[in-house]
Amino acid sequence: MSRQMHLIAILSTGPTTHHHAMWRHPLTENRFLDPEWWARLGKTFEDAKFDAVFCGDSQIFYNDVTVRKGGQISFLDPMPVAMLLAQATKHLGIGITVSSSFFEAYGIARSLGTLDLLSGGRIAWNVVTSTSQEEASRYGLDLLSRNARYDRADEMLEACFKLWDSIDPEAFVLNKKTGEFMDASKLKSFEYNGKYIRTKGPLTVPPSPQGRPVIMQAGSSERGRQCAARWAEIIFTLQNSLPDMQAFYSDIKGRLPQYGRRESDCAILTSVDPIIGETENIAREKQAYINSLVDEELAVGLASMHLGVDLTGFAMDQPLEDINMETGSRGAFDIMLSASKAQGLTLGQACRLYATSELCPQLVGTPEQVADQMQDLFEKRGCDGFILTPVCAPGSFEDFTRSVVPILQQRGLFRKEYPGTTLRASLAE
Amino acid sequence: MSRQMHLIAILSTGPTTHHHAMWRHPLTENRFLDPEWWARLGKTFEDAKFDAVFCGDSQIFYNDVTVRKGGQISFLDPMPVAMLLAQATKHLGIGITVSSSFFEAYGIARSLGTLDLLSGGRIAWNVVTSTSQEEASRYGLDLLSRNARYDRADEMLEACFKLWDSIDPEAFVLNKKTGEFMDASKLKSFEYNGKYIRTKGPLTVPPSPQGRPVIMQAGSSERGRQCAARWAEIIFTLQNSLPDMQAFYSDIKGRLPQYGRRESDCAILTSVDPIIGETENIAREKQAYINSLVDEELAVGLASMHLGVDLTGFAMDQPLEDINMETGSRGAFDIMLSASKAQGLTLGQACRLYATSELCPQLVGTPEQVADQMQDLFEKRGCDGFILTPVCAPGSFEDFTRSVVPILQQRGLFRKEYPGTTLRASLAE
Repeated sequence: MSRQMHLIAILSTGPTTHHHAMWRHPLTENRFLDPEWWARLGKTFEDAKFDAVFCGDSQIFYNDVTVRKGGQISFLDPMPVAMLLAQATKHLGIGITVSSSFFEAYGIARSLGTLDLLSGGRIAWNVVTSTSQEEASRYGLDLLSRNARYDRADEMLEACFKLWDSIDPEAFVLNKKTGEFMDASKLKSFEYNGKYIRTKGPLTVPPSPQGRPVIMQAGSSERGRQCAARWAEIIFTLQNSLPDMQAFYSDIKGRLPQYGRRESDCAILTSVDPIIGETENIAREKQAYINSLVDEELAVGLASMHLGVDLTGFAMDQPLEDINMETGSRGAFDIMLSASKAQGLTLGQACRLYATSELCPQLVGTPEQVADQMQDLFEKRGCDGFILTPVCAPGSFEDFTRSVVPILQQRGLFRKEYPGTTLRASLAE
Repeated sequence: MSRQMHLIAILSTGPTTHHHAMWRHPLTENRFLDPEWWARLGKTFEDAKFDAVFCGDSQIFYNDVTVRKGGQISFLDPMPVAMLLAQATKHLGIGITVSSSFFEAYGIARSLGTLDLLSGGRIAWNVVTSTSQEEASRYGLDLLSRNARYDRADEMLEACFKLWDSIDPEAFVLNKKTGEFMDASKLKSFEYNGKYIRTKGPLTVPPSPQGRPVIMQAGSSERGRQCAARWAEIIFTLQNSLPDMQAFYSDIKGRLPQYGRRESDCAILTSVDPIIGETENIAREKQAYINSLVDEELAVGLASMHLGVDLTGFAMDQPLEDINMETGSRGAFDIMLSASKAQGLTLGQACRLYATSELCPQLVGTPEQVADQMQDLFEKRGCDGFILTPVCAPGSFEDFTRSVVPILQQRGLFRKEYPGTTLRASLAE
């Protein structure tokens, strides 16, 4: 079998995902608070044999602009949404964004372990380190420096891996006659005493059919890449062009051996934003229409939110210059800077472009043309597959699963059936 | 309409609930890790028009005895279980036990608020303060003193109530033409700076159809009763006899006015353990059989766990004496002491009795006899209704819903239809 691509849909429990005019699209339903809507979408992704769906998260209303104009708001805790998606499906993987900076390991391990068990082994944890003091303040905390946040993430994952390994599945005896319920010698007691994380095992949650949740990561700063190369089984990245994708891909794959990992242990998925039309011309018109709805004020507000730097004081007609980033997201900034230099953009233009798809490529055209572009990025080792982000929900996904997926399947690039029941089984393909 | 009783089923994600031989019952399924089992049970409770189902929680394996012999273990985080119960039902309330001692307010408010919204307003939060240093150590914490734990619970609830009041439901505009998504002036910003809890609003979760989750509490120490009388809309209590129930009932109802609350603002539900037979004699034999399966070693281990005091060093043939309880559960101890004195029990006998139903009454007999006993406790103001605890799962619940509920309905003591869609609407009846 030829190399197979992986497909994951990204959504948020709010008005936009990456395209910041999504909620204004005439066909967008904006039913992001409706459990029926989520259950139906889960079935759409599963019918198309997607590896997974994944929910972004930002825990706060960043500022008045994002509230007024419908920026990247996640209204809901993604964990209950994940459970309802799991209950509506049987094979689909489900990614959940949880910050490693604001919670203790035991609680995260218990929640995600429970979801992984109840879903039959279909959960991925998208580990984010969080870049906003405003978020930290919600938890009565001071935001750690970028390196310290990644140090805490490393400890968090070490501790969670030990917690998820607490119970030998053979421990259950359940002998009603003798009254022996479990073999206590098959539980693993331990203490974890890190600089940031302290906990004790065993955890009460038995292992799921995939053992423990899949780890997903999106770090793109130097420290973020170290963390991702050590832990991530799925890396989710935003890159603006094939050369940028290839550079990121080979950098990460090259880092894996130093953590005792093989290339195939980590799937690197790049975000794309498919815009599909009956003809190329229709698709181009659709693209121009939705991009025209992006609001400039919202664009600057969102870029500020993601970079962790307030850009409203900067001159919008100047080129984007390198700026000192103490706490914000270095990775997001580098992508913006690289795109700006390549295309000679002003800061205002860069923000606007950022707000269309956070600088990930819009793949525009007929179903065949979109499939061609994906095949090209995939075969040229820009990625191992894609994070599909919508300009319209659920329409963008339905267009894609109805027209592009069958072409990818026909070309032998994407599965026609799930290979097993767990997310890790899908990723191993 | 005459006064109506409230009925709530209690379960845990493990081998036992209150009767510590439950998992050994020949008809118990022990499918506590199976989402299908939970979904089916949810439907059973909803068909019977129960107010709610509620999941206990203890976050650790207390000791080797509880593991080996199947004591009160909660394998799973109750939040995902609550979401799956919500998705399987339309009217049933769902209670979730979450400790107020180990988490920050923002995370709890976000998770429970999301569950309340996605369930259409059917969530109750059973606020427990936790009595075990072993649990605290899982979170890298030292257990606070009893009073400090309740002080933290008060702050936690103050902060969560403010967080759940963050968004005026009128805030959503969703005007695709103008691009106005929300009216930012309808979000409430605030800071909460308590001794234990620090957070900021607004929270991102919009209010549910019942506004915010119902508060459920089981405190029975003096400090616990203050907290319950201030906050609880459902009080869950374990009392051994009608006089104990009446004393507790009138004490709590008498405390409500000092918090500006009416008697009807708080439903006091007492635990009972129905054992139903075709004849009284069959029911008595069933009772003797299941009680004979309670293991003495497990009984002492469990009493130690619940009291927060290691009893294994005490003489089992001596009467239960008053002991100094610095950190453990004073309320649980008082109930055990009162039952011991009334019945002249040794410590060993008290532990054994404790392990049958944690000292709550076993209501034994034909369906009519069980209904009679419930009517008596209810009409004599021992309670406003019942927490039904099983000796066999799901059999105990099915026996009850099939035979006792129709009698209670016929007598006009229990609803035949839900009065609304939310849990708070059911409680108002």
